[in-house]
Amino acid sequence: MNNKTFTVSDQQLLEEIMLHRRDIRGNNFLKKQVSEETIHKILLAASLAPSVGFSQPWEFVVIRDNATKNLVVNSFEIENEKAEKMFCDEKQKKYAELKLEGIKEAPVNIAVFYKPSTRPVLGQNTMKEMGEYSVVCAIQNMWLMSRSLNVGLGWVSILNPESVKKILKSPPGNKLVAYLCIGYVKEFMNIPELEKINWETRKSINTVVYQDSYSVDRQ
Amino acid sequence: MNNKTFTVSDQQLLEEIMLHRRDIRGNNFLKKQVSEETIHKILLAASLAPSVGFSQPWEFVVIRDNATKNLVVNSFEIENEKAEKMFCDEKQKKYAELKLEGIKEAPVNIAVFYKPSTRPVLGQNTMKEMGEYSVVCAIQNMWLMSRSLNVGLGWVSILNPESVKKILKSPPGNKLVAYLCIGYVKEFMNIPELEKINWETRKSINTVVYQDSYSVDRQ
Repeated sequence: MNNKTFTVSDQQLLEEIMLHRRDIRGNNFLKKQVSEETIHKILLAASLAPSVGFSQPWEFVVIRDNATKNLVVNSFEIENEKAEKMFCDEKQKKYAELKLEGIKEAPVNIAVFYKPSTRPVLGQNTMKEMGEYSVVCAIQNMWLMSRSLNVGLGWVSILNPESVKKILKSPPGNKLVAYLCIGYVKEFMNIPELEKINWETRKSINTVVYQDSYSVDRQ
Repeated sequence: MNNKTFTVSDQQLLEEIMLHRRDIRGNNFLKKQVSEETIHKILLAASLAPSVGFSQPWEFVVIRDNATKNLVVNSFEIENEKAEKMFCDEKQKKYAELKLEGIKEAPVNIAVFYKPSTRPVLGQNTMKEMGEYSVVCAIQNMWLMSRSLNVGLGWVSILNPESVKKILKSPPGNKLVAYLCIGYVKEFMNIPELEKINWETRKSINTVVYQDSYSVDRQ
């Protein structure tokens, strides 16, 4: 039996860590090295995530090599130029002003892959995405663990996954789920940058919760 | 500035919560009610998750109604019968012995949906899955918050998402990401049930970590 009981202050501390977690972009990472021990703790947190059918379908490439980072930045720049055109007028201007990645600044990058199982996986029969979703649970564990270690983490999604796979010599069957930039930071902003610049407004939880079904009045 | 510094004991507590988190299945939920306040804390944790372009693309249906739960159980039973056939011999026997859901036992179920944005989302240009992945980050926050509240959570994925959407009268454009069972439990097992019965073995983190690229020797 493992009925460890957590206290109210434990619960509040977890909430604090969640509240203070930020997505870290460019112009914010410090040059200060991140120790192997710290990276190990972050990876260990990943391994404690839930996974469908206990499949643990995650693989991690830890990147410190500058030449590799430069190639990934090239992929970002190509995709970012395309992405900018999706927005109009004021938003395009705001978009161009944002520095959306810290690939070279961050001392450590971690590419996170989903490695599909070669055998049937319990729980992944009907919902095929469950394998990838398990990998995302691992990433959220890494994010929270990083914050508790006072280390910043940013998820760069403006990348062509196939280009990144080629750069990292990934097996063809693997899928790139995330490309993470990790390092100490100048600051953890009080609120997300995109909230601060009014890119999007924060949704109140009550506006996205329904009772029993979508047809019934909201909470 | 928000440079809150967490301590070593804060980091260790987070690790404890991650270590003691379990997927809760059938024959383990207690009848004890879960208060609105507790459910609210779990939903609040979801809203603190990172989301691509601050899109917060999540919606939640909180289910306490027995008739609705019965319909969801029907969908589970249909899919579970199909799933069982994927496994052979000993594994099929083991599979049949597992009680893989606690839908009716758990006082609260929460269906978690991804609601795609009608406008372009920053960061979701190249990697379209980023919206769903944001919802999964929210689910992992819910899971950890539940555990810190000493409340069990189980993710049921042996369901037909389209059937569940119909039962819950979901808008057609929404995607069911997860169906969660929530309640107090008899026990949080020491190790995952699937590890205990040797369904799968635990992977050492060193076997899934690579340095700089897949072609370089492992850590």
